[in-house]
Amino acid sequence: MDATRKANLDRAFNPELIAVVGDKKITDYMWLKSVRDAKAKVVSVQIDENEIPGILEMGFENYPSLEAVPGQVDYVIVAVPRPVAPRIVADAIKSGAGAAALFTSGFAETGEEQGVQLQEALTNMTREANFNLVGPNCMCLYHSKAGIRNSADQWIGEEGDIGFMSNSGTHATSFVMRARINGLYPLKSISMGNSIAVDQGDWLEYLGEDPEVKSIGMYVEGTRDGRKFFEALRDVAARKPVIIWKGGQTTEGARAAASHTGHLASDMALWDAMIRQTGAIRVDTQDELMDAFKALHFMKPFTGSRMGIVAQTGGQSVLVSDAFGREGLTVPDLTQESYDILEPIVTVVGGSYKNPLDVSGSLTSIERGREMLDTLAADPNTDIVVIEASIGFIARRLERQGKGMDDLIDMFKDFQETIDKPFAVIATWNQDEAALADFRGKIADRGIAVFPSFQDAARAIRRLRDYYVTQGELAAG
Amino acid sequence: MDATRKANLDRAFNPELIAVVGDKKITDYMWLKSVRDAKAKVVSVQIDENEIPGILEMGFENYPSLEAVPGQVDYVIVAVPRPVAPRIVADAIKSGAGAAALFTSGFAETGEEQGVQLQEALTNMTREANFNLVGPNCMCLYHSKAGIRNSADQWIGEEGDIGFMSNSGTHATSFVMRARINGLYPLKSISMGNSIAVDQGDWLEYLGEDPEVKSIGMYVEGTRDGRKFFEALRDVAARKPVIIWKGGQTTEGARAAASHTGHLASDMALWDAMIRQTGAIRVDTQDELMDAFKALHFMKPFTGSRMGIVAQTGGQSVLVSDAFGREGLTVPDLTQESYDILEPIVTVVGGSYKNPLDVSGSLTSIERGREMLDTLAADPNTDIVVIEASIGFIARRLERQGKGMDDLIDMFKDFQETIDKPFAVIATWNQDEAALADFRGKIADRGIAVFPSFQDAARAIRRLRDYYVTQGELAAG
Repeated sequence: MDATRKANLDRAFNPELIAVVGDKKITDYMWLKSVRDAKAKVVSVQIDENEIPGILEMGFENYPSLEAVPGQVDYVIVAVPRPVAPRIVADAIKSGAGAAALFTSGFAETGEEQGVQLQEALTNMTREANFNLVGPNCMCLYHSKAGIRNSADQWIGEEGDIGFMSNSGTHATSFVMRARINGLYPLKSISMGNSIAVDQGDWLEYLGEDPEVKSIGMYVEGTRDGRKFFEALRDVAARKPVIIWKGGQTTEGARAAASHTGHLASDMALWDAMIRQTGAIRVDTQDELMDAFKALHFMKPFTGSRMGIVAQTGGQSVLVSDAFGREGLTVPDLTQESYDILEPIVTVVGGSYKNPLDVSGSLTSIERGREMLDTLAADPNTDIVVIEASIGFIARRLERQGKGMDDLIDMFKDFQETIDKPFAVIATWNQDEAALADFRGKIADRGIAVFPSFQDAARAIRRLRDYYVTQGELAAG
Repeated sequence: MDATRKANLDRAFNPELIAVVGDKKITDYMWLKSVRDAKAKVVSVQIDENEIPGILEMGFENYPSLEAVPGQVDYVIVAVPRPVAPRIVADAIKSGAGAAALFTSGFAETGEEQGVQLQEALTNMTREANFNLVGPNCMCLYHSKAGIRNSADQWIGEEGDIGFMSNSGTHATSFVMRARINGLYPLKSISMGNSIAVDQGDWLEYLGEDPEVKSIGMYVEGTRDGRKFFEALRDVAARKPVIIWKGGQTTEGARAAASHTGHLASDMALWDAMIRQTGAIRVDTQDELMDAFKALHFMKPFTGSRMGIVAQTGGQSVLVSDAFGREGLTVPDLTQESYDILEPIVTVVGGSYKNPLDVSGSLTSIERGREMLDTLAADPNTDIVVIEASIGFIARRLERQGKGMDDLIDMFKDFQETIDKPFAVIATWNQDEAALADFRGKIADRGIAVFPSFQDAARAIRRLRDYYVTQGELAAG
């Protein structure tokens, strides 16, 4: 991308001085709070006498205008009423800031004449100045390492290797939250809003060029410039995984998208063709997005489709086999050598030492579980190893040996590090949803792909398999 | 069904005297514990000197044989080693019990000669005596009101209006657990196991004739007698809703099913044809089963497909519209009359008072939310009303008014009781999964259909709509 634009965006993402314009008590000073833990110095610009005391109380300096702020502002957050927005954006341009993010909404997405005209004014102004306006109608920028956020509720820290860009402020914000509870580390999350100045193609190029970004996700409702976006996608997806979550797929959704960000929906078939040609990954929900990232970041790459499975009971064996079977993956017979090892350790009459191992009462110790997993991993008939961990069943058995779920997770982690096949856990249980969420969180924290259901696991694994196969084909030309 | 068989099953489900044969310390006396809170008297039959002291310690009388038990045993649970099973079943027949449930596994499902022969012996013996053998290879019977259970972890109580029958013991057991956390009341749950004496058709007839059973669900891997099952289904499904969850749909699943309960899988296309012809409801996972029951028990019947929706943000508006759109439901424009009411109360610039209402900052009070819901319900363009309740967003706003989530749920409940259209809640949030599970549980406890995602809600609602439409068509002939 244009080197000046890139340098300016870098400056906004790694600011030394941030100015928040127009923050208010009624929104609980959400923007000042969103950046108060940033590494940068943060100042306020506010002229409303009713708002200033609250701002000073929080310890921020306040200035009557951007121009009055001493020093070079790198990143401006603008939360002023709609009619004032163009004037403040003009001030931001004049200030030489790296970027301004315009939270204010009520532009072309409303379909009203005033909104459309104001958006046109903003578009002309920012294009002329080649200025990085984020939004309008957006939740601004997130960068974990700089401590700038879409919302004060988001995690920040020294990790981060995922880039996300979103037409929806909700999804830009919640991406960071959901990623963390899934054990993933978001680096940058961009709320693009109406994306009038920096558009989808620009943002994709920007994340593509960021060496710290290992993989990219996006929630898009449409693009301003389809050709540019396609070229950026072809270029970036050849270098790192790109996951595309398209909103406005149906007539109903497209209608909502038009009044959300003013994007006109394009035919989903076009998007599918573009995704196929570029080797990107399609997902349709936020959960699928998270599942794809987990499989991408935590499971070793694979192109095979033969599952080796440990299930907790016979009924679960059937369901997990159906789930993988529906996605076109197979659950093959193991070698006789494996059966010779498994037969004596899957001891319950009625349990099955075939694949899936229906371990019922046989998973009596962590060592026993490890033996089963090692046997599945060593078997030449399997490509991927998965275990169903049903906390109710297992917890009781472990208790009798004075062990807990943490010991089990330690074993999973050690197993994953030892084998050269991809591994995943499907965490299930019936009654205590809070305990299950806690268990899943602990597994995720160790960098193990954990899925909430057989279907979700099967879908994510099939998707990643398709991805690796396609990447191989594209690389081979 | 055969009146003697029915009377005997009734006796087993409402026993005065229960005998548990062969319970053991190594399984933590699971069967005695499963019925210790039953209304019936419970006695043990055990001859192993090592096991008897533990049984006496729990306060149960112990006898050396069924014959030695004083009084008429109504229900026998058999958990003896496989080779002994036929003899104990013969004793149970002789005792005149209403039914015996055989937990023991290792019969035809193993594919081994000994197992197959023993199953044949059991089959002949029970058929000759027209005896109600449940199983083998099963988790026995559950009846909430009698306090008999598949597992001591299950809820029991004076409520209950759902019947469930399952080829899988796991699913018979967990059905009761999952139903309760979804606000539903299970009445009877039958673990059919290999179902050699009382088969799928019998159980379906039995639940069909039970006046307390308002709706029926089943997990089936196959049927012993397809014709009989089809006739039972046609008969029962015309009188009450029947939800069918078929395991072993794929080659992979069918292979697992064969070694699970020895059922040979039949073509899923045949099952689909049968489901369509009889007006039953098909689901493919346990979550879908629960969602269908919630829609069935908590939402007023409907044949329309026009959604009126409150969403929390613009991004969510797009996704919820896509989710319903993908299922063939519509999100129509409202009347001008509704817009005149909504425009002033959906106050945030950029929020949308169209359908879905994108309420963003506008859901500032419970009264405001109620006005929105009432407007959607009163609009002649809607058939079904749904609200997304995102606990993070709402909780903070309610806090400022000194209100909590319970007040919000009270409003939902009152709204549901007041309107004549079906209503459902989609509970979402980003970070705190335990808090979300708690919120969902509270909504479910009030008898309101609550779904964990847009997709799940859309699928369940579409399914129920199809069900009511089909029932209307079948009734019209």
